[in-house]
Amino acid sequence: MQTTALPPTAATLYTQRYRHIRSRTADICRDLLTEDYVVQPVADVSPPKWHLGHTTWFFETFILSAYATGYRVFSEDYSFVFNSYYESLGKRVLRVDRGNLTRPTVQDVYRYRAHVDEHMAAFLEGFESQDLPGHDEIAELLELGFNHEQQHQELLVTDIKYILGHNPLFPALEISLANRDIAQNSMFQKAQTCAPPAGVHEIGFKGKGFCFDNELGVHKVYLNPYSIHTQLVSNGDFLEFMEAGGYGNFAHWLADGWEWVKTNQITAPLYWHKMDGQWWNYTFGGLQPVDMSAPLCHVSYYEADAFARWKGGRLPTEFEWEVAARQLDWGRRWEWTNSAYLPYPGFTKAAGAVGEYNGKFMINQMVLRGVSEATADGHSRATYRNFFQPDKRWQYTGIRLAE
Amino acid sequence: MQTTALPPTAATLYTQRYRHIRSRTADICRDLLTEDYVVQPVADVSPPKWHLGHTTWFFETFILSAYATGYRVFSEDYSFVFNSYYESLGKRVLRVDRGNLTRPTVQDVYRYRAHVDEHMAAFLEGFESQDLPGHDEIAELLELGFNHEQQHQELLVTDIKYILGHNPLFPALEISLANRDIAQNSMFQKAQTCAPPAGVHEIGFKGKGFCFDNELGVHKVYLNPYSIHTQLVSNGDFLEFMEAGGYGNFAHWLADGWEWVKTNQITAPLYWHKMDGQWWNYTFGGLQPVDMSAPLCHVSYYEADAFARWKGGRLPTEFEWEVAARQLDWGRRWEWTNSAYLPYPGFTKAAGAVGEYNGKFMINQMVLRGVSEATADGHSRATYRNFFQPDKRWQYTGIRLAE
Amino acid sequence: MQTTALPPTAATLYTQRYRHIRSRTADICRDLLTEDYVVQPVADVSPPKWHLGHTTWFFETFILSAYATGYRVFSEDYSFVFNSYYESLGKRVLRVDRGNLTRPTVQDVYRYRAHVDEHMAAFLEGFESQDLPGHDEIAELLELGFNHEQQHQELLVTDIKYILGHNPLFPALEISLANRDIAQNSMFQKAQTCAPPAGVHEIGFKGKGFCFDNELGVHKVYLNPYSIHTQLVSNGDFLEFMEAGGYGNFAHWLADGWEWVKTNQITAPLYWHKMDGQWWNYTFGGLQPVDMSAPLCHVSYYEADAFARWKGGRLPTEFEWEVAARQLDWGRRWEWTNSAYLPYPGFTKAAGAVGEYNGKFMINQMVLRGVSEATADGHSRATYRNFFQPDKRWQYTGIRLAE
Amino acid sequence: MQTTALPPTAATLYTQRYRHIRSRTADICRDLLTEDYVVQPVADVSPPKWHLGHTTWFFETFILSAYATGYRVFSEDYSFVFNSYYESLGKRVLRVDRGNLTRPTVQDVYRYRAHVDEHMAAFLEGFESQDLPGHDEIAELLELGFNHEQQHQELLVTDIKYILGHNPLFPALEISLANRDIAQNSMFQKAQTCAPPAGVHEIGFKGKGFCFDNELGVHKVYLNPYSIHTQLVSNGDFLEFMEAGGYGNFAHWLADGWEWVKTNQITAPLYWHKMDGQWWNYTFGGLQPVDMSAPLCHVSYYEADAFARWKGGRLPTEFEWEVAARQLDWGRRWEWTNSAYLPYPGFTKAAGAVGEYNGKFMINQMVLRGVSEATADGHSRATYRNFFQPDKRWQYTGIRLAE
Repeated sequence: MQTTALPPTAATLYTQRYRHIRSRTADICRDLLTEDYVVQPVADVSPPKWHLGHTTWFFETFILSAYATGYRVFSEDYSFVFNSYYESLGKRVLRVDRGNLTRPTVQDVYRYRAHVDEHMAAFLEGFESQDLPGHDEIAELLELGFNHEQQHQELLVTDIKYILGHNPLFPALEISLANRDIAQNSMFQKAQTCAPPAGVHEIGFKGKGFCFDNELGVHKVYLNPYSIHTQLVSNGDFLEFMEAGGYGNFAHWLADGWEWVKTNQITAPLYWHKMDGQWWNYTFGGLQPVDMSAPLCHVSYYEADAFARWKGGRLPTEFEWEVAARQLDWGRRWEWTNSAYLPYPGFTKAAGAVGEYNGKFMINQMVLRGVSEATADGHSRATYRNFFQPDKRWQYTGIRLAE
Repeated sequence: MQTTALPPTAATLYTQRYRHIRSRTADICRDLLTEDYVVQPVADVSPPKWHLGHTTWFFETFILSAYATGYRVFSEDYSFVFNSYYESLGKRVLRVDRGNLTRPTVQDVYRYRAHVDEHMAAFLEGFESQDLPGHDEIAELLELGFNHEQQHQELLVTDIKYILGHNPLFPALEISLANRDIAQNSMFQKAQTCAPPAGVHEIGFKGKGFCFDNELGVHKVYLNPYSIHTQLVSNGDFLEFMEAGGYGNFAHWLADGWEWVKTNQITAPLYWHKMDGQWWNYTFGGLQPVDMSAPLCHVSYYEADAFARWKGGRLPTEFEWEVAARQLDWGRRWEWTNSAYLPYPGFTKAAGAVGEYNGKFMINQMVLRGVSEATADGHSRATYRNFFQPDKRWQYTGIRLAE
Repeated sequence: MQTTALPPTAATLYTQRYRHIRSRTADICRDLLTEDYVVQPVADVSPPKWHLGHTTWFFETFILSAYATGYRVFSEDYSFVFNSYYESLGKRVLRVDRGNLTRPTVQDVYRYRAHVDEHMAAFLEGFESQDLPGHDEIAELLELGFNHEQQHQELLVTDIKYILGHNPLFPALEISLANRDIAQNSMFQKAQTCAPPAGVHEIGFKGKGFCFDNELGVHKVYLNPYSIHTQLVSNGDFLEFMEAGGYGNFAHWLADGWEWVKTNQITAPLYWHKMDGQWWNYTFGGLQPVDMSAPLCHVSYYEADAFARWKGGRLPTEFEWEVAARQLDWGRRWEWTNSAYLPYPGFTKAAGAVGEYNGKFMINQMVLRGVSEATADGHSRATYRNFFQPDKRWQYTGIRLAE
Repeated sequence: MQTTALPPTAATLYTQRYRHIRSRTADICRDLLTEDYVVQPVADVSPPKWHLGHTTWFFETFILSAYATGYRVFSEDYSFVFNSYYESLGKRVLRVDRGNLTRPTVQDVYRYRAHVDEHMAAFLEGFESQDLPGHDEIAELLELGFNHEQQHQELLVTDIKYILGHNPLFPALEISLANRDIAQNSMFQKAQTCAPPAGVHEIGFKGKGFCFDNELGVHKVYLNPYSIHTQLVSNGDFLEFMEAGGYGNFAHWLADGWEWVKTNQITAPLYWHKMDGQWWNYTFGGLQPVDMSAPLCHVSYYEADAFARWKGGRLPTEFEWEVAARQLDWGRRWEWTNSAYLPYPGFTKAAGAVGEYNGKFMINQMVLRGVSEATADGHSRATYRNFFQPDKRWQYTGIRLAE
């Protein structure tokens, strides 16, 4: 994790940005009922109240406890409960047990948020007005905290969707998703593919502002000739694959993917249900008929890869995607790429707990590029590297083809 | 399940008894917070709100839907959600998924209770004042519903204890446990053992009033000479076993028990924690030092059996226990016996869903006799057969020795 | 384990009996190929060479090493490899790993047998001709060794059947099964049931000669009135249950049994295969059409219990069986009873490793009475208590009904 | 899979090459005992007799059945038993069940080999002397069959090592390993690192002769500046990591790697045993003291990655490795790279069963480059891409550092 120096004017905005981001988190949960905050139906899906506590714990631990003179932690126990995976910082509650903790309660967690927000407000006021020692380091940690909370906002949305979408009552919920507006390049709606020039390109983050450590280290890659679709695969496209028996023919699938299909008896994207001969889709508005022209969503890498093979194409690499980004119509799905999540040349983990942020997950995961409906505005960018194991599909994941 | 005919005066009490029992259920939960109602930390421990819904569903399904003219179910979905294991009545929510259901909410469930209570009140008024066709059958089902709810009251207590006792904050809770008063025969406090006469004895329920189907069929058993302790094993007694290395010596254990000890790294009764050289115990009052003179609690059959072998004794059979019951000081623990849970001669399952109540569990379980602190007053009796798998210990289970 | 004193003439027969029993073990394996000796397809089924080694190790450990002056063990390693479950005697090879041991080879194991047989011959010669100190204790251990080897003979047969019966080539094998002749009372072929007198009966072994410790402690039981079928359930009887949808109707099954049926997709007894509309059966002669008049074989307790319930009967208790034994036509199947395997009054484990023989398995198992085609002649008797978990069916297990 | 056209003279060598390769397979097994051929201690390790049958089945299925006029398969059953993972060709024996098949016997399998060898000899004689239709296609399949068998030769060696190395008797075995001589460039023994030029390089197979389909598609990659060690990490180097507590400090490990270490209680490379304060190593010569100057062997990707991080370096990518290959001292270990196993640009699966050879495994695996002691001479090359999941270590896997 690293940022280039912010211009002085930017510094005055910390208080404002902190408030904005924190309130969006609460906003996502605005219409949840207390019970919805508590459960963890599968290991990947954390209880919403855990997200609320964990993002708060992040600011408390890395900012207040470290830099705010005289700050006393809200509760010693919360460190134990709300740490996620920072092994440096002591024994954490096993990830699968998060959903068994009825205490701290939702109200406790909101009190915890209020307490930390109050102290952060005081701290940020001082931070903006003075030239503190360690200013740059703190600025970096604040940026990380902001982006960290935005990441959890996305997980909050997808985890809530999972919790309600697996309830036999299929409840509808008012939820404020991001108003997606990145790169909605309408000019490409007719064009089908584009073909950026082959040759050496630069990859990685080089602008000003924040990025994650895994985007750093601008470096060159050579792209062999390729073309890439400007539009995402639609629900209707994918239904053709399904109707052609795609889920039943091993020839389209990676060996692990085929095992996954059979073991889990997968026959459709997540949240699709066939009722009375029609396909329905769980959304925050409840069950809705599948919109065939909308971009496909909630598929695993295995499904993306099988679809591409069936269609005679392939998935783009993350480098092909990044180079083509300006020519693509992207902004609503995280898009599976055919690149494994591995370090860029020169990548090094930061020292200490913060260094556990990204690097230690660089195995057995595939890179996704883009941004989803559930992503906070301004959180993603063309160099952003998202990553998940190839069987995961509770995020807003879709497919773009290359050739 | 069967009852002998109730005297007319008893019949007038249905309304009163219904109210009394139903309100005790709510009373147990009085100080729970909403979050505490939702989770299922292990398969055996159901979410409290599930118990509240399930016991209500029982009256709705077996009484109101069957006998109350014009009754309409509160919600079609609830049948799906709150059925426990009655395969006759349609697809149930898998037992392990109960803890992932955030809806219906706690408030929804209380509304459901209120709805059913209101209709039951009207129904019972009619039932008490008229000689309805099917009266006896309804009376039996009512008795079953009352006793069923009392059984779930006990599970509510033990499940709540499990949920809070496994939370790292060890919360204390005001909970109204039964004021246990069965057979608190103080006269035996000095005597150590008693020896009922060997020979043929009658076993099984033969009084008036309600009993479960598994107690029926009075029959004879021959008891060979035996003696049985009048007092339960205390925490202090068990600590001796622990300090003698009891958990570490396979010679005391059944083979399956030894496997259980090693796999689960068992070193003490459930809820015991050693801190700073002293043993503490989770109770509804929070962590407390273990009271060495109190009867031991929360041990498995494996532990009970190993302790008895180490001590040079054995566990009594359920028949030895029943014959000796009047001479024993019992009333606070469910006591493991050395009898497997099997049908009495002449046992037959009732037809239909009610017949699934007891009979289908008659394998791989051991009988417990007695009554616990968490049992509803008047719910147990000397012929009552409780039963659990030999590794279970989240109930108020204790040990009595025989020789 | 205990024997009454043997008359002097019997003592002279040890050499002869030892030879007879040991040679029958080898005889069972006579037509195995080397590969057949090595594998362990499931945890319950041990590799035949392990049985050969283990029974030999028993005599080496409990007789030669303990009593034969100057005896040196064949190999220190073998104690590690061939101990089964005697925790007292050191770390054993985990039971599930037996099938991964290619060494010692089959030839090594036969050499080991020859070595121990040679030393046993010398030892027994001395033992028969002299009045050694510890004579009675040794005599008891010899009896135990003989009976132990006979028990493993039966397991050898059933384990070989499992290994070959699960091979897609379904190989046929010449195998010398016991010529079963116990209690082949033809007089009852017409009678359907008998009804021994209700009342107090004595149970347990009281003759001369050997019995296992779990049969000891003659004691009284009271039998309530009952009747019991004189004949076993036939394959044809069971096919009726199957054709009536017995495997698909939960109402017939114990809850655990129903789970077992669904999880393992059970639709027929073990070794039955439906091909081209006909039922076939794997036997040592290869696949054969099912003989509908032969006694049913290879069913679990769950299947036995479900069949009985469907048929309107029940399984007899082990006591009902024992009292009726003289009136029954038994001798070809182990018959599931409705009794859990628990200690008789006064049962105590012998001290030391020998005490691990039976007692520690007295949980979660059901008693079987009778004798099977695979049992050594003279090994079983009317008081013999065999026992298995209720899902096991690779033994020659059948069904007899009571009412 | 694809080959360039072979010159006519090469064609005359098929018979000779077939014989040579097939006899080496038998040679590897020369000193196995029958029992050693049968078992499958873990899913990855196949029984040696299965390898013997499977490689034979490959020639029978893809050459003889397809092209040899009038050929009749040796046994219909063998197709079922010896297919590995070719879903196109029918139901295969589940991989984990291979170790439960005692039939076909070892002798049967050798008979099968002799039968196929005889028919292949006749077929190859015709093939070499005539210009058959389909010549090129057959030539390609032969090459594939040869290389396939060589791959299984390596697995034979490593699987035999696993079987014997996990036997408590630690048997020694005469085994003929390849006489490794690829790139044993002694000139680099002093130099520590080399730094090939940064910039665009060509990657992939472009010579004449055979290569696998996953090496094809010569394409360009851009290498950023790097340096790479000319020598492999030694046992002594790795012992330093161990003695510095490397296995106990999560900071060195990928998250999945740390989970792997804890779950499997890993504390040393596979086959290392500490006895009386010294480290021993299982080899085909039995247990031997670890040679500290020899290249490290039998480590997982997780261990390789953790060691590199601890040492302040990293693993090279497969492209860095390939470009530097001429400057490296390689030839004894498969070397873990920091590249995931993914398709080269333009990769396409061949049609039909042969197409299942490589492509469907391109997920969740890491690339290894080099060659091991167990690899057949001439089988590997600088463009060869081996691949395994990151937890696997029963192959001859080692570590080379880059910076």
